[in-house]
Amino acid sequence: MSTTETPSGIYRYKAGDVVVTAVWDGFNPLALKDGFVRNATLPEIQDTLASQFLPRETLNITFTPLALQHGGKTVLIDTGFGKAGPGTAGRFLANLEAAGIAADTVTDIVFSHFHGDHVNGLRNAEGGLTFANAKLHAPRPEWDFWMDDARMEQATEAQRKPFEMLRRIFGGVQDQVNLFVWDDEVVPGVTALDAKGHTPGHTAFMIGSGVDRLLMISDVTNHPALFFTNPDWAASFDMDAHDARKTRHRVLDLAASERLRIAGYHLPFPATGYVERQGTGFRFAPAQWLYGA
Amino acid sequence: MSTTETPSGIYRYKAGDVVVTAVWDGFNPLALKDGFVRNATLPEIQDTLASQFLPRETLNITFTPLALQHGGKTVLIDTGFGKAGPGTAGRFLANLEAAGIAADTVTDIVFSHFHGDHVNGLRNAEGGLTFANAKLHAPRPEWDFWMDDARMEQATEAQRKPFEMLRRIFGGVQDQVNLFVWDDEVVPGVTALDAKGHTPGHTAFMIGSGVDRLLMISDVTNHPALFFTNPDWAASFDMDAHDARKTRHRVLDLAASERLRIAGYHLPFPATGYVERQGTGFRFAPAQWLYGA
Repeated sequence: MSTTETPSGIYRYKAGDVVVTAVWDGFNPLALKDGFVRNATLPEIQDTLASQFLPRETLNITFTPLALQHGGKTVLIDTGFGKAGPGTAGRFLANLEAAGIAADTVTDIVFSHFHGDHVNGLRNAEGGLTFANAKLHAPRPEWDFWMDDARMEQATEAQRKPFEMLRRIFGGVQDQVNLFVWDDEVVPGVTALDAKGHTPGHTAFMIGSGVDRLLMISDVTNHPALFFTNPDWAASFDMDAHDARKTRHRVLDLAASERLRIAGYHLPFPATGYVERQGTGFRFAPAQWLYGA
Repeated sequence: MSTTETPSGIYRYKAGDVVVTAVWDGFNPLALKDGFVRNATLPEIQDTLASQFLPRETLNITFTPLALQHGGKTVLIDTGFGKAGPGTAGRFLANLEAAGIAADTVTDIVFSHFHGDHVNGLRNAEGGLTFANAKLHAPRPEWDFWMDDARMEQATEAQRKPFEMLRRIFGGVQDQVNLFVWDDEVVPGVTALDAKGHTPGHTAFMIGSGVDRLLMISDVTNHPALFFTNPDWAASFDMDAHDARKTRHRVLDLAASERLRIAGYHLPFPATGYVERQGTGFRFAPAQWLYGA
């Protein structure tokens, strides 16, 4: 029915002086297959999901970019799938505008890494720039890996696809991208943190300051029902399983020890909460929805 | 900032053939005091909240009525606080209309019980009927308790307030209220269930049919961080602590045993999920946000 298409998926909260808006892009109902986790069997994955009231056959992977408003700037952390996404993805722009943030008022876009669900939204369906006035910021190790033409030339045809996709996305604007390194304050109130493993330049962010800091874990985990519960499991999406695992333990340990509020691109919407230790792993504790506080 | 006022708080899902829309009315930041739980000390309450990443001094009580669309009917379960609410409450009508449901298209309103946060929204700020075309349904034991003039006359002045409030709410329409009893199918797809204790006629509902049933627990618990964790704790809101406790165990046991999806008026928005046993009590497991499925 048409009413199911009512825009929904905006959640606003604060991290110190930074106003954070979590913006729902949609979800991909991924059919689970052997090999999705390199070091767990399909039945192990399914039992873990079922024990947490989730379906056995489908992993619903959700996508939630952030918009940050602070000091006159409007900063996006990632841009969603754009029009290229699977499942219901592609709602980011409509929800962002429903949240009162017009595309042409975005001043900065900070990319966590270069997977398609994070960068495709930079371009609209016609190939133009969705956010016409935004300055772009990307992790230097991510850029150096994917924009290395020699590496692309050595890749197999299947491996070449993400390299080619990124050349379409950044074509014509590559000279205007600010390349940052870990520990840089990329824009005021947003500091880049080493979270390598998922990709070579995968970056987390500390947002705000003081006790109200927000740790954006980006893709340190995919679905928490799998990878908080079993932080040693290696999703097929993780390019370097060893580094991704080390990063996951380090980041989740930090969040649990300091009781930091976190956000995460693939956490259940509104994609913010806390980390507690449970058994040999962790559990995601969603923050209570207090919209309008 | 004005952008914090963007309407938000709509979540749509299905229970069998019934389209369920959870609609956020807002929240009341209740200052915690000794006596809020009759059989727990303030430090015990505070430690329980803090262990679940919630504030120690304030219990944020949220309000989420449901709209059900099925077989040509649009049915509300409760109406929110209207304009009379504390905190941020009073957003139900605006969010309902944002969800594409105009007030004058509501065909039926089914009340779970007669506390102000559930019934005040029946009237608008001018005292008129908010939902001009809706047939009203109320639990007979609730009606018989509160609309008994002899009982009101015997009450102290403080005790009289809810009796007087209900006479304002139902004044002029009292002859048009359909009084139902437990186990009645109140409207197609919505069956009333005995959940007495919180109030004399407090009612839960089974919505939909088959494996996709939804158990609306209404106020069987207030905040799950307190009353799922400690189902024997008696909130000061529970008029009959003994019956409320028996009902809470019975309803949460049923949901846990049958792995039923539940909704609840005071569960964290979008106020739907599952019940698992944990220690000597229960834990609320929120359903994953899959808006647009």
